[in-house]
Amino acid sequence: MKVLFVAGDPKPERWTVPIKALLPEADVHVWNPDGPAVDADYAIVWQPPAELFQRERQLKAVFNLGAGIDGLLAVPNLPADLPVVRLEDAGMSVQMAEYVLHQLLEASREMEKYREQQRQGVWKIHRPIKRSEWPVGVMGLGHIGKRVARTLADLDYQVNGWARSEHAVEGVTTWAGQDNLGEFLSATRVLVNTLPLTDETRNILDYDVFSQLQPGAVVINVGRGEHLVEEDLLKAMDDGQVARAALDVFRTEPLPAGHPFWQRPEITITPHISARTLRDATLAQITDKIRDHAHGKPISGVVDTNRGY
Amino acid sequence: MKVLFVAGDPKPERWTVPIKALLPEADVHVWNPDGPAVDADYAIVWQPPAELFQRERQLKAVFNLGAGIDGLLAVPNLPADLPVVRLEDAGMSVQMAEYVLHQLLEASREMEKYREQQRQGVWKIHRPIKRSEWPVGVMGLGHIGKRVARTLADLDYQVNGWARSEHAVEGVTTWAGQDNLGEFLSATRVLVNTLPLTDETRNILDYDVFSQLQPGAVVINVGRGEHLVEEDLLKAMDDGQVARAALDVFRTEPLPAGHPFWQRPEITITPHISARTLRDATLAQITDKIRDHAHGKPISGVVDTNRGY
Repeated sequence: MKVLFVAGDPKPERWTVPIKALLPEADVHVWNPDGPAVDADYAIVWQPPAELFQRERQLKAVFNLGAGIDGLLAVPNLPADLPVVRLEDAGMSVQMAEYVLHQLLEASREMEKYREQQRQGVWKIHRPIKRSEWPVGVMGLGHIGKRVARTLADLDYQVNGWARSEHAVEGVTTWAGQDNLGEFLSATRVLVNTLPLTDETRNILDYDVFSQLQPGAVVINVGRGEHLVEEDLLKAMDDGQVARAALDVFRTEPLPAGHPFWQRPEITITPHISARTLRDATLAQITDKIRDHAHGKPISGVVDTNRGY
Repeated sequence: MKVLFVAGDPKPERWTVPIKALLPEADVHVWNPDGPAVDADYAIVWQPPAELFQRERQLKAVFNLGAGIDGLLAVPNLPADLPVVRLEDAGMSVQMAEYVLHQLLEASREMEKYREQQRQGVWKIHRPIKRSEWPVGVMGLGHIGKRVARTLADLDYQVNGWARSEHAVEGVTTWAGQDNLGEFLSATRVLVNTLPLTDETRNILDYDVFSQLQPGAVVINVGRGEHLVEEDLLKAMDDGQVARAALDVFRTEPLPAGHPFWQRPEITITPHISARTLRDATLAQITDKIRDHAHGKPISGVVDTNRGY
């Protein structure tokens, strides 16, 4: 079996050495932009070049080094019948849950205000939080969205969930479909986006959505930059519809110098770190699936490429 | 039945109006420093004056407006046989859990570093967290300590617990007693104190304890200021035994201007806000207990005054 590793890591041996250890039956190659085809059976990829699918014609499946496969699906020449396998969790959902919780607490517990007081040597106690004033709404109820929603519900926040299709999450009130989006938004003050990026969800975080949130709204985007209409967020802040935002993903990454987001104290910017791919867990999962697939066993995480996730 | 409210709130009606509504059978009085005895059956108190117990000789029980009763037990003239009832949870443990989690994430997820980068317009991704490098140890496994420990364990942190006596907490490794403190400390990097303040626990957070923690140690104190030997923390930081601390409680509150803690960027100071008494939940609990006690029913939360909690 031949496995081809295709990602822009300057030290690909950080990946290929453990792949060989986990999958000793495999012949492991690193993508060479100039090289000939290796006739790989499986490719493990992150943002691969279009040439990959032109050159490698024997692929039986392609494994994405991330949960969101919008980037891979956008690569030209991706054969329509090639199974695309997304990363499932691999330690990401718990990171996302704690990141979202941290950003929620920054708002609900006024942590920046207390940090500013400390800088000024001021001891002043503010009104305690009433959880009833901080209902959270999680958009997207896949593996990550569910974990985020459960974590917040366990801390006694009122949590709403919304997704395209029906989902049940213990302790969370859920809505499904475009027709019920308004009801979900009007019950929500802190909007958390964990949706996959598809043609349906691109630009979903717009002025219309923001204007339906409860007063003092907070927007936390851990999905994709393309979910957010950036100028609509700024306008919603200027109009008082949104009080603050925590953004981990952007339409252009790194966020360009001079982007207006940098200048906004009410926007928290982090450099796409809310959930990181953990190499050990990721490679254990992918190599297990490659072995199963090679033995004709069914594997989970195969993407519906029409649906987009 | 006569109920006496004894707390330094300049607007005692914020408490007495709901007490009357919840306990219509009661005759509710506010403590008058100059007034005569009202021969109260029950007192609801926070840091009461010593005169209370000299003047009111008919008390059947005293209800503390907080979970920690170290202050009440220190009041002179407290009759040895008077039942002292502590506040049980009333919304505090969940606040404490989220506060501790926030401070843990400040360290483990390097949130201040990312805030500093944002101020400088820098997009830079740091090494992802490995949970195995952030074992947490919770001292005190009462209602609050258990909730803190469970919350962190639910987010896949390795959590240790230590208390005077044996406790079992799902997903948490526990140790009991002084003899096992060293083993608990050496398995811990982030030390969280939720102990009650007693003669045994006063000054427990000292240089000896800090020096047994794992490298890059973090100390989070949400117990009482008197648990912490302040100069030992500073020395442990100077010596590199402790990397950072988050302190919500202090030997003197408000923390005096000029206290060396204010000048330490590696110490996060909050003004005793990690868990606030929520008036509605507190009064519902206390008035239920007063009614039960008056009807001869057993009530929970009665303090062992010899043990001190």
